[in-house]
Amino acid sequence: MGKIKVGIINVTGYAGVELARLLFRHPEVQLRSVTGRSAAGQKLAAVFPHLADFDLTITADLDEPVDVVFSAMPHKASAEAIIPLVNKGVKVIDISADFRLKDSAAYLAWYEFAHPSPGMLKEAVYGLPELHRSAIADARLVANPGCYPTSAILALAPVVKEGLIEPGIIIDSKSGVSGAGRALSLTTHYAEASDNVAAYSLKGHRHLPEITQELGALNTVLQPSVTFLPHLIPMSRGILSSCYAKIKLGKLTNGLKDLRQVYTDFYRNEPFVRITDASPGTKQTWGSNFCLIYPYIDTRTGTIIIISCIDNLVKGAAGQAIQNMNIMFGLGEAAGLEALPVYP
Amino acid sequence: MGKIKVGIINVTGYAGVELARLLFRHPEVQLRSVTGRSAAGQKLAAVFPHLADFDLTITADLDEPVDVVFSAMPHKASAEAIIPLVNKGVKVIDISADFRLKDSAAYLAWYEFAHPSPGMLKEAVYGLPELHRSAIADARLVANPGCYPTSAILALAPVVKEGLIEPGIIIDSKSGVSGAGRALSLTTHYAEASDNVAAYSLKGHRHLPEITQELGALNTVLQPSVTFLPHLIPMSRGILSSCYAKIKLGKLTNGLKDLRQVYTDFYRNEPFVRITDASPGTKQTWGSNFCLIYPYIDTRTGTIIIISCIDNLVKGAAGQAIQNMNIMFGLGEAAGLEALPVYP
Amino acid sequence: MGKIKVGIINVTGYAGVELARLLFRHPEVQLRSVTGRSAAGQKLAAVFPHLADFDLTITADLDEPVDVVFSAMPHKASAEAIIPLVNKGVKVIDISADFRLKDSAAYLAWYEFAHPSPGMLKEAVYGLPELHRSAIADARLVANPGCYPTSAILALAPVVKEGLIEPGIIIDSKSGVSGAGRALSLTTHYAEASDNVAAYSLKGHRHLPEITQELGALNTVLQPSVTFLPHLIPMSRGILSSCYAKIKLGKLTNGLKDLRQVYTDFYRNEPFVRITDASPGTKQTWGSNFCLIYPYIDTRTGTIIIISCIDNLVKGAAGQAIQNMNIMFGLGEAAGLEALPVYP
Amino acid sequence: MGKIKVGIINVTGYAGVELARLLFRHPEVQLRSVTGRSAAGQKLAAVFPHLADFDLTITADLDEPVDVVFSAMPHKASAEAIIPLVNKGVKVIDISADFRLKDSAAYLAWYEFAHPSPGMLKEAVYGLPELHRSAIADARLVANPGCYPTSAILALAPVVKEGLIEPGIIIDSKSGVSGAGRALSLTTHYAEASDNVAAYSLKGHRHLPEITQELGALNTVLQPSVTFLPHLIPMSRGILSSCYAKIKLGKLTNGLKDLRQVYTDFYRNEPFVRITDASPGTKQTWGSNFCLIYPYIDTRTGTIIIISCIDNLVKGAAGQAIQNMNIMFGLGEAAGLEALPVYP
Repeated sequence: MGKIKVGIINVTGYAGVELARLLFRHPEVQLRSVTGRSAAGQKLAAVFPHLADFDLTITADLDEPVDVVFSAMPHKASAEAIIPLVNKGVKVIDISADFRLKDSAAYLAWYEFAHPSPGMLKEAVYGLPELHRSAIADARLVANPGCYPTSAILALAPVVKEGLIEPGIIIDSKSGVSGAGRALSLTTHYAEASDNVAAYSLKGHRHLPEITQELGALNTVLQPSVTFLPHLIPMSRGILSSCYAKIKLGKLTNGLKDLRQVYTDFYRNEPFVRITDASPGTKQTWGSNFCLIYPYIDTRTGTIIIISCIDNLVKGAAGQAIQNMNIMFGLGEAAGLEALPVYP
Repeated sequence: MGKIKVGIINVTGYAGVELARLLFRHPEVQLRSVTGRSAAGQKLAAVFPHLADFDLTITADLDEPVDVVFSAMPHKASAEAIIPLVNKGVKVIDISADFRLKDSAAYLAWYEFAHPSPGMLKEAVYGLPELHRSAIADARLVANPGCYPTSAILALAPVVKEGLIEPGIIIDSKSGVSGAGRALSLTTHYAEASDNVAAYSLKGHRHLPEITQELGALNTVLQPSVTFLPHLIPMSRGILSSCYAKIKLGKLTNGLKDLRQVYTDFYRNEPFVRITDASPGTKQTWGSNFCLIYPYIDTRTGTIIIISCIDNLVKGAAGQAIQNMNIMFGLGEAAGLEALPVYP
Repeated sequence: MGKIKVGIINVTGYAGVELARLLFRHPEVQLRSVTGRSAAGQKLAAVFPHLADFDLTITADLDEPVDVVFSAMPHKASAEAIIPLVNKGVKVIDISADFRLKDSAAYLAWYEFAHPSPGMLKEAVYGLPELHRSAIADARLVANPGCYPTSAILALAPVVKEGLIEPGIIIDSKSGVSGAGRALSLTTHYAEASDNVAAYSLKGHRHLPEITQELGALNTVLQPSVTFLPHLIPMSRGILSSCYAKIKLGKLTNGLKDLRQVYTDFYRNEPFVRITDASPGTKQTWGSNFCLIYPYIDTRTGTIIIISCIDNLVKGAAGQAIQNMNIMFGLGEAAGLEALPVYP
Repeated sequence: MGKIKVGIINVTGYAGVELARLLFRHPEVQLRSVTGRSAAGQKLAAVFPHLADFDLTITADLDEPVDVVFSAMPHKASAEAIIPLVNKGVKVIDISADFRLKDSAAYLAWYEFAHPSPGMLKEAVYGLPELHRSAIADARLVANPGCYPTSAILALAPVVKEGLIEPGIIIDSKSGVSGAGRALSLTTHYAEASDNVAAYSLKGHRHLPEITQELGALNTVLQPSVTFLPHLIPMSRGILSSCYAKIKLGKLTNGLKDLRQVYTDFYRNEPFVRITDASPGTKQTWGSNFCLIYPYIDTRTGTIIIISCIDNLVKGAAGQAIQNMNIMFGLGEAAGLEALPVYP
């Protein structure tokens, strides 16, 4: 039986090119076709010299039959490109937000377009393997989670599911600049972003509804009320989320010992989640698919502090997408994702 | 009448050398004596080439009569050096933590030493001009606030004083690496600190009791319950604090409009506090004594978000110390602190 | 007698806004008018929050009578804007390259336009005070040097003028990213520029003809043959140039002692040039108008190594322009430029 | 036949821990023993959280029989540790400088110790596979090249060997801060190294004699006269060397076309050397074993400019060491080194 044939739509953004990097070393797939409107006709290696050894030409559209497609298109355009593929029987993993939210009305509110296929929305599986592994295995269409939601949901899922906290949750996230993408902007101009930190999207970041949807589904009684504030900090890769919530009265009576047990139990068999013994840094995930989680209790105030770290382009995008593909095709879940973090 | 004669104890740390930089350009003072045990006998200009034009030799002890001394010693040592100076009639501004806390028992708990002069603790004034200007004017001994407390207290003072929030407060602070000082450590080694972010001092940072003392004194009814988590991010200078609290029922009924009014009223005549119209970045304060504050309301959850930015070495240390000196000596409060932020 | 009235054309680039920062604190000038096509109608403080305290509106064209204009326009457009001003009797300091080269044909070769006023080219003075102070004092039009040429010419002028080296000169320059300007490009996108260094403009950088013109004029016998290679490195500000040349046979027979004497003599009375005792770093110039020069000899190979450091936006642009203005108006040469470097 | 058993002496420096990272993923080896005096008794995963999945304890001395040892000790100590191992029949790859120089007197001059085994010096092979592959295959002891020499020798070997240049060579190298190691120093303190560039070791860097030895051996007629100046720039990983030399009269008469042909011929079958079509950046090598080389000619001055980029910890240290091991054991030369550069 041959290798799985893979295509990438919009390889020219950071998520797309990270997919290419990882897929080139995946032992069981063959990258066959990569698209990118602005760079169509150019060699992939000319646009991205770190991929110099690979002989692929960027095309305007998929030009080879493939078994699975990763879409790294912007939202709305991604849905339009994906729907016919799914209908043709191609498996699809969508890096965009277009199939993450179950409520089609949310797309009008948060993304300002009418969703073209509410039916397919319902069918799509939210691709966080730690929560939805078996549904992913059977899915035709997987909606790969956003980078911030990956870090936040993995941090909070155990305490939310077990009902250990009060509903009020603060998520204070710090992201490296690659999270803002490869498109140019003053915010991501080197001289502006270096030696600087700022919060943004105070009115409401588009990743908030994903977070509330997934945490809400874990515990329909709790009804989490989430304040999520993202910050841009001067590094290329990485997200660290600091999550805060009050302990519910009568819960975690043994304190940190109980809390750590909840986390080690919840993630016992997960290949990419590690409960750490000390406060982790994003550098410990650089280039890898790991999510590090450090649960703590501020006993002075009865507040849970959960810290999580990921590489936003790997576990927060391309790596998780490949993890999903591995599950969909029955491969080893870590295939192609074995690289250790590059330190320092 | 001559210029004010100034001494700096322990000029060789970042706060000390920043004092020297600013004082050299202060129109009404003369820097007469700078000490530093490890560098005693060397020219200040040899140790710090950016001060190359100034002819001062670092000595082991103050070797000139001075009107005012800034102490940038580590805690405990600072108190020991300062007490005799105050008793001799020299005005002192202490950059260390040794006279910030009113409760002498707190020194045993947080700093692990028995405070040598609880009486002088009571006399010392907490040198945050926006809260204690008139007491500073009359003080013999001013305890210069910590960098994190400066950012956090200025962010929260208006809503705490007016009783607009519930007691549970989250302060999530992000600091540049100079805040960890000039002493070497693996945490501040370039290859470790670059491309990295991590939370630290989860067990309780020493700046927490300052924050609770000052916020508590602003509103004895509210009894704030503060969770404070500092993070180290890859930049040299700057602190951004993101502060969260629930709005008290029935308060701020006009929302953001009310909130902004509270802040503009509270800081109406402050030379160094600016209420900004947009989410600020620390780069907008680089090298200056400004504190930028951006008040916001997450209306989805009824949560106040207050963001503040300072340069940790200026408003967070040396600049604020000079502001205090200006007040103590009846000078223009901004004397020597007129420099605009260096951007980009 | 009133303050000098000043205008800035194109305040919205990094050189323009740095001029505004410095001029706001200059004791003898008043900034009256700032232009910027793309931001016309906006408050300067809205576009650049670090200038929040100043009440100026950006206009499309100069809207106030002024005594002197700084032009920070791109080349070609700058000449067009400047020529009528000079003809009207306004003194002009041009930050662009439009009046730096004496040979009008060079504009066609290097900048791809026919120079509109070869006569005014001849009249304009190359604004490097260390070489042309007296001509600057009498000039109507000063051509402010490029950032790389400032660092390279100051490094090499003494040995070239004295004829101590062979003609073959290598200039290897490392620049911070602000040197590439505020206009967006992939090269200056944070995630591309961070953790990266690359050489550029190998075919010939536009600053080369300035360097050869000025070094050539210092010694018409030597006929310097210059290879100049600029590199972009991950910092906001600063240029370090490492300059190499063989010692001419029979020169500098006392080695480094002779060489240092040549430099200290050449720059004896210069307010902004310092000959350092140790290898300098660009951080020692951050935010200041200083140029640090470290002359050295590789005795193994008989090669002179001259290292120079500047802040590319101050001595390499806005600061030097103000230094030129001070000379043109008979002010103290350091007026408005007294700030010490911001370290660390 | 089983896996090759490997030990690392001094795993706690950056070269040592990078070896561990790469060896854990090497398909044909098993890492059995890692030493480190300061951390003896601790779990490797506790000291280096990015290696969390591996269960090895750091010991004071090698505690398992191994087939090959990598020594990442400091110089002098490395020789002392290695000599008995070689004598016992263990193959050794020495990351230190202790067996790189053929002339034992050079150790006194450059490293200030008398070499303990001039005989073994002669036997040791300089481990640059592109120059000494067949000798490496037969070696008992391989001296892994320094990071700067790797970048400089690979850049210059083709033109030196072919005698295309004059003897005077300038090598201007820019290194990321990890090159200075994991030991603490003020130079590598974050707040000092960020936003800064400086040259160092002007009196002569210890990597110079390696460069002259290897270039000299390539062409005994040419007698290269090398000026080598290293610079520290604010990034974690990477070295870019810019190399300059005059073209010898009558050589390269077809200019760049000839020059590129020389390089593509010289490195035709090399798995890790790429001749690039455009000026490369170090980011294109991040985490990988590639060396990128860009040959160019400044036709104005008849100067060759050769630019090379490597990751100093991979091709400049651990990766090259593994490449050498692969050659010594007859494995695929790229085994364990297949990872693509991590971009951005």
